[in-house]
Amino acid sequence: MAQHSASDTAGLEPGAPVYTGDFKDAGMRVRVIEFDAHTLVEREISDLAEARRCLQSTQTSWIDITGLNNVEAITAFCNAFQIHPLAVEDILNTSTRAKAEEFGRNLLVVAQMVRLSFDAEEHPVLDFEHSSILSGPSFVVTFQERDGDSWDVVRRRLRAGIKRIRTSGPDYLAYALLDAIVDDYAVVVEALGKVAEKMEATLLDTPREVEISEIYVLRRELTELRRAAWPIRDSLNAWRRSEHLDEHTRPFLNDLQDHATQVVEAIDMHRDLVLGMIDLHLSSLSHKMNETMQVLTVIATLFIPLTFLTGLYGMNFDNMPELHTKYGYYFAIGTMVLTFVGGLAWFRRRGLI
Amino acid sequence: MAQHSASDTAGLEPGAPVYTGDFKDAGMRVRVIEFDAHTLVEREISDLAEARRCLQSTQTSWIDITGLNNVEAITAFCNAFQIHPLAVEDILNTSTRAKAEEFGRNLLVVAQMVRLSFDAEEHPVLDFEHSSILSGPSFVVTFQERDGDSWDVVRRRLRAGIKRIRTSGPDYLAYALLDAIVDDYAVVVEALGKVAEKMEATLLDTPREVEISEIYVLRRELTELRRAAWPIRDSLNAWRRSEHLDEHTRPFLNDLQDHATQVVEAIDMHRDLVLGMIDLHLSSLSHKMNETMQVLTVIATLFIPLTFLTGLYGMNFDNMPELHTKYGYYFAIGTMVLTFVGGLAWFRRRGLI
Amino acid sequence: MAQHSASDTAGLEPGAPVYTGDFKDAGMRVRVIEFDAHTLVEREISDLAEARRCLQSTQTSWIDITGLNNVEAITAFCNAFQIHPLAVEDILNTSTRAKAEEFGRNLLVVAQMVRLSFDAEEHPVLDFEHSSILSGPSFVVTFQERDGDSWDVVRRRLRAGIKRIRTSGPDYLAYALLDAIVDDYAVVVEALGKVAEKMEATLLDTPREVEISEIYVLRRELTELRRAAWPIRDSLNAWRRSEHLDEHTRPFLNDLQDHATQVVEAIDMHRDLVLGMIDLHLSSLSHKMNETMQVLTVIATLFIPLTFLTGLYGMNFDNMPELHTKYGYYFAIGTMVLTFVGGLAWFRRRGLI
Amino acid sequence: MAQHSASDTAGLEPGAPVYTGDFKDAGMRVRVIEFDAHTLVEREISDLAEARRCLQSTQTSWIDITGLNNVEAITAFCNAFQIHPLAVEDILNTSTRAKAEEFGRNLLVVAQMVRLSFDAEEHPVLDFEHSSILSGPSFVVTFQERDGDSWDVVRRRLRAGIKRIRTSGPDYLAYALLDAIVDDYAVVVEALGKVAEKMEATLLDTPREVEISEIYVLRRELTELRRAAWPIRDSLNAWRRSEHLDEHTRPFLNDLQDHATQVVEAIDMHRDLVLGMIDLHLSSLSHKMNETMQVLTVIATLFIPLTFLTGLYGMNFDNMPELHTKYGYYFAIGTMVLTFVGGLAWFRRRGLI
Amino acid sequence: MAQHSASDTAGLEPGAPVYTGDFKDAGMRVRVIEFDAHTLVEREISDLAEARRCLQSTQTSWIDITGLNNVEAITAFCNAFQIHPLAVEDILNTSTRAKAEEFGRNLLVVAQMVRLSFDAEEHPVLDFEHSSILSGPSFVVTFQERDGDSWDVVRRRLRAGIKRIRTSGPDYLAYALLDAIVDDYAVVVEALGKVAEKMEATLLDTPREVEISEIYVLRRELTELRRAAWPIRDSLNAWRRSEHLDEHTRPFLNDLQDHATQVVEAIDMHRDLVLGMIDLHLSSLSHKMNETMQVLTVIATLFIPLTFLTGLYGMNFDNMPELHTKYGYYFAIGTMVLTFVGGLAWFRRRGLI
Repeated sequence: MAQHSASDTAGLEPGAPVYTGDFKDAGMRVRVIEFDAHTLVEREISDLAEARRCLQSTQTSWIDITGLNNVEAITAFCNAFQIHPLAVEDILNTSTRAKAEEFGRNLLVVAQMVRLSFDAEEHPVLDFEHSSILSGPSFVVTFQERDGDSWDVVRRRLRAGIKRIRTSGPDYLAYALLDAIVDDYAVVVEALGKVAEKMEATLLDTPREVEISEIYVLRRELTELRRAAWPIRDSLNAWRRSEHLDEHTRPFLNDLQDHATQVVEAIDMHRDLVLGMIDLHLSSLSHKMNETMQVLTVIATLFIPLTFLTGLYGMNFDNMPELHTKYGYYFAIGTMVLTFVGGLAWFRRRGLI
Repeated sequence: MAQHSASDTAGLEPGAPVYTGDFKDAGMRVRVIEFDAHTLVEREISDLAEARRCLQSTQTSWIDITGLNNVEAITAFCNAFQIHPLAVEDILNTSTRAKAEEFGRNLLVVAQMVRLSFDAEEHPVLDFEHSSILSGPSFVVTFQERDGDSWDVVRRRLRAGIKRIRTSGPDYLAYALLDAIVDDYAVVVEALGKVAEKMEATLLDTPREVEISEIYVLRRELTELRRAAWPIRDSLNAWRRSEHLDEHTRPFLNDLQDHATQVVEAIDMHRDLVLGMIDLHLSSLSHKMNETMQVLTVIATLFIPLTFLTGLYGMNFDNMPELHTKYGYYFAIGTMVLTFVGGLAWFRRRGLI
Repeated sequence: MAQHSASDTAGLEPGAPVYTGDFKDAGMRVRVIEFDAHTLVEREISDLAEARRCLQSTQTSWIDITGLNNVEAITAFCNAFQIHPLAVEDILNTSTRAKAEEFGRNLLVVAQMVRLSFDAEEHPVLDFEHSSILSGPSFVVTFQERDGDSWDVVRRRLRAGIKRIRTSGPDYLAYALLDAIVDDYAVVVEALGKVAEKMEATLLDTPREVEISEIYVLRRELTELRRAAWPIRDSLNAWRRSEHLDEHTRPFLNDLQDHATQVVEAIDMHRDLVLGMIDLHLSSLSHKMNETMQVLTVIATLFIPLTFLTGLYGMNFDNMPELHTKYGYYFAIGTMVLTFVGGLAWFRRRGLI
Repeated sequence: MAQHSASDTAGLEPGAPVYTGDFKDAGMRVRVIEFDAHTLVEREISDLAEARRCLQSTQTSWIDITGLNNVEAITAFCNAFQIHPLAVEDILNTSTRAKAEEFGRNLLVVAQMVRLSFDAEEHPVLDFEHSSILSGPSFVVTFQERDGDSWDVVRRRLRAGIKRIRTSGPDYLAYALLDAIVDDYAVVVEALGKVAEKMEATLLDTPREVEISEIYVLRRELTELRRAAWPIRDSLNAWRRSEHLDEHTRPFLNDLQDHATQVVEAIDMHRDLVLGMIDLHLSSLSHKMNETMQVLTVIATLFIPLTFLTGLYGMNFDNMPELHTKYGYYFAIGTMVLTFVGGLAWFRRRGLI
Repeated sequence: MAQHSASDTAGLEPGAPVYTGDFKDAGMRVRVIEFDAHTLVEREISDLAEARRCLQSTQTSWIDITGLNNVEAITAFCNAFQIHPLAVEDILNTSTRAKAEEFGRNLLVVAQMVRLSFDAEEHPVLDFEHSSILSGPSFVVTFQERDGDSWDVVRRRLRAGIKRIRTSGPDYLAYALLDAIVDDYAVVVEALGKVAEKMEATLLDTPREVEISEIYVLRRELTELRRAAWPIRDSLNAWRRSEHLDEHTRPFLNDLQDHATQVVEAIDMHRDLVLGMIDLHLSSLSHKMNETMQVLTVIATLFIPLTFLTGLYGMNFDNMPELHTKYGYYFAIGTMVLTFVGGLAWFRRRGLI
């Protein structure tokens, strides 16, 4: 997870609107979907002022704003809704942890969207995007850093005219959007789980083909994922305590919290497995070392006494009677063979070969 | 635990009925048991519509539906009971964690059934099956993925005419079904405990015969088991808070929660032991290495100086007076013997042999 | 801890009376002590029916039943007291975790008694015995698996006519019995603590005399002890909430809970020490390896160049002028001595010798 | 974190004013800022008595006192405000953990300010400074050990005439001051995060260039940072429960608590990564050892048998027929080449080269 | 911490007065301080009965009883105050964990006093002493095992006539006594922290000079200290809930609890550092091994092929044409030099030298 720059905001007035993310050149894009049970109009507008106007309609509106770097426009837009400056800061500050907070009649939900890609070496790479969902009496406004998000499924459902989402009002739409984000967490956890399973299978079969750095990277991604997913559970608690919450939406929030809990538990299970893999890996390193040392020990130990014997009879003393016997050489060779065989037998008994 | 595919459901409408398990070709089977204190009728029906009819009887009915892949039939069936779409999703989504939730007058309990088998190499293999228990005013409907379950004991008790189960109503039957599931967890934990004890005994006697991968696999199974067992405790809390809960069943739920707690504590104890075994194993690897190195060190260190001496008197200098003395050879051999014995003594004093 | 057989009870009707322990052939023994402030009668009876009769007396009775394998007699006895079938199951099922539960006017307390013995190699061996204390308006009934228990001290106090225990009624007697059990935990923890201290002293002085398996066994026993002791604290919470609890007994329960907490904390402290000892042990293994390798390295490294030199002048080239100089031999020896001394100095500077 | 001297205060009367920090010679400096929505006067005064006078104004005053070693002046000043002696002790005792406590109408907030610098070897060095914020009906008094603090940003905002801070009263100013402190924690965490990321990148590429001591130091700094940051969260809970808390400031405190939580979670994530790095490092040490041993094993094992063969034919027995055959030498060399090549092949098959 | 003998008390009647500490021969000493705002009388008495009399005075009395082994006198004394037998047991049983409990109008606080000394090898040694503080309407009675305690500072403050302690009554005096005990914990933690810092500095500079056993001992002392300090926090919770607590003393108890929390957090921080040091140590062992092996590998690997070559030309075959060429010897030496230099280059490229 890119550690967003605390230094960008440190020292600013609390509630001062500053964008802290990495996409500082993203253009601004505003997509509006206005719908009721029967009709749905989708358009892209260029002016946030215009967006404000369409909120006066009796239909439910979803205004999706991309490009958090356009701080001034967003701030002006938020002020028009009398959104608390702290909420604006949360929308723009990409390091805000997931939360849900009521500001008067509006509810702000902040969460990180997540995507998983694979780099050239097939290592998983996590990609987080800061997003906020502001839900009011007749509208939902969403804020995100760049194009591409977890919400196409929601758009598809709206367009398809699924009755529940078209008729259940902004609270349900906000829920559906957060649900789509949590769904993506589940997808990512599942994908990382598959990476972990593959790694584990390799470790169990041919441990030397797994590098500790791969395990480490997996561990780090799980750590990052957990850090982003964990506060979503808490935020749902806060949301459920909201007074204005539409009663029909409550069971869906309960369900979503179960879902988020499941994501966190799956992450924890994978982390536990990864810790186990590190033990496996270290053990396999020790194992390999043991094997290497055993080869050296057996060969060296078997030959060292023999080499000594050859040296012994290679000495140049004048008076070495054995050298001059007829079968001295064969006797020496016999001794060596016996020593060698004895050594082998001893090693075998010790379990070293 | 097969990581069921979050990707199958991600992006679907919440509450959209999709089966996410591995048994996508299982046929559908519906077994009905209708009973009261005096009579019990068991039959297998082919049509869920028919199942619906038999619920109007004054007897208690247990409808057991196998084959979650028949999504449409199940959805239609559930709609007829006005079961909340989220409950239907929970019934079909095999990655739902254990839970108990009230939907109007009905209570839905979700849990994973567990079985333990052993593969060709006698390694334990866990097998989970997603199951749901829906308890209403006069019926219990159960859903499971495939044939074979934890519930034969309940069927036997019903057939045997045990009074309590025949007369205590659907709540008690639902309890008895969950109790049977938890009983299977206890059986599996006990079996894994025996595997752990055997492994431990081997490790303590002949550590080199245990491979770290066996310990790792045991650890993973305990992790998976814990992940499935843990939420059952929470689900019992939710169940006990249910308004409609029949008072006679309450002490049984308390008892079941104690039982579930006991399962989780036993898992934790075994996990702790397994972590200890990893230490044992790593220590035994180090130990073996020490032994190997000691052999090499003793042999090499004893002979290296001797070999040097033989080399010394194997040099071809013209002027090497020792070579030409009468007892030079014997003196050299004497020196070597002394060096060897001195080395031995030194090693013994150092505790290396 | 003997993992008692979940498979014995799995599939039975909840509340079905089955004995799951290891003492399946123990005879049944019923000892009755009837007492008030002034008199105390002790006798052994053979018939539980008779036991029932003596409960009608105005005195307080303590009926101590040994031999849980006599399931039918015990079940009949319990039924006569209208003890809930689940309580009967808890009394007989040796894997029930410690708990206190009210059943109408009776309170059932379940706990494991513990004893420590030492095997032939002076390793500590834990021995658990399942016991239950049922306290009613004028009686206490205790159940245990076999002869020998933690309660002789209570019997002695009764016989000695200690006023408080003779006059404070069944609640106090039940407390005194549980207190005696917890006392034994404290004694066992203390004994294991002494084992740990001795092991630690040995590890600090002569680490190689401690085997990892001894540390492991200690760790396992502490794990088992904790698993048995931990739920006793919870059970005291439940007991203290009991409506029928005699107010004079309450401060004693508070005190007992402090006592149980102290036992658990002491176990945790010892576990922490044991984990530290494993580090000590692994470090000592590494240390020993380092020493071994150092010996090999020093000897081999010092002699290898010398041996090369002797080989050099042992070559049989015709034209090797050094061989024919007068002092070539002495010069060669000088070179060797210098090389040797230089090597020694280098090693000393590197801190290797 | 300098472990401040508990021994300085031990044995003193509770509430006895003693300065326990490291800056015992700091001069005293008192800076006063008096402001309302329209005017702002900044001055430095020399006498705390004078400071007291300016508190009678209708404006809000911020009195910033530097130099906690001037114990008497500070004590006298505090007494004039009827500040509880325990609060005075907290202000002066640099080892007080972060807290917020009400004393009558005044609120005292204690926290450590943090700064990060880098030493000559580019290792991060944390620097903590004890600070206290006393907020009353119309004033805020701050106490700090030495010049240089986290509060220049607040001063700038006051001077810039930002409306909210100029008009929201002392509670908001106190909040802004604590917020500035927490901002600095976030900056430090981010900087340590960058150090960790760089270290991690190096570890993954060229593990041998990272020394364990660097990882250890990073771990220690994160531990210290966590110890200082953790109680700030608790102190915010206490503050929010304060009766006198101005309602407009409450959402800011909520936000600040989220912020502090985020800091602690980021520290925990980095700590987790650092623990992973230690595994990486140890694994790389093992890896290097394996490589070293492999080189030795391959070379030694290949040559030892060859050297034995040369020794064999270097023996001086009279009767060694091979020596006198015509192609004996070439045959011997051939044998050696075959042995060598065979050894290489064997090593390759074993995966050792 | 001396594991006090649970076996001394096991089996005794609860509340039976037994002294379980190590100072079984300590004489009994009773020191009385009677004071009010104006006068203070200190005397030593020999008879506890006399002590009882002086409690009837209107002054506040502090009766300090040393020598818990005088069980009968203490029991009689306590009975005269109608102290609950369980409280008497807590006073005498040295393994009682810290607690505060009300007995009617009296409050009993139990805590371990701690002292740190250094043994001959400058290793820190902890020394705990069981102490109890009994606070009543007009008196404080303290019990301790032997001479020497944490309370001289309190005596000095009383004698010095510090107003608050002379006029605030027994509750405040009891607080001041516990505060003095906690102060000593802080002093000990600080001293252990300094030991840890020194150890850490040595480890970072010259890791081989630190022995794992020193780190282990430090870890154990921190574990023991934590076990004694942890329950003091809980006991303060109980004390604060006391109905009879004098309101002026309450803020002091809050402050003391912060203080105790700080002590526990400092212990935890040091424990974390110590765990880090163990990693450092193990890593340094591996490092040293790597170095040793590298020396051996480099020397052996460089010389082994050379020695082989010398052996080759030391063979005694008749037909070895190279031996008889004019420059064969120099050519052989050249080959060796090239091999040596090539080996060096290879090692340098591999980073092994």
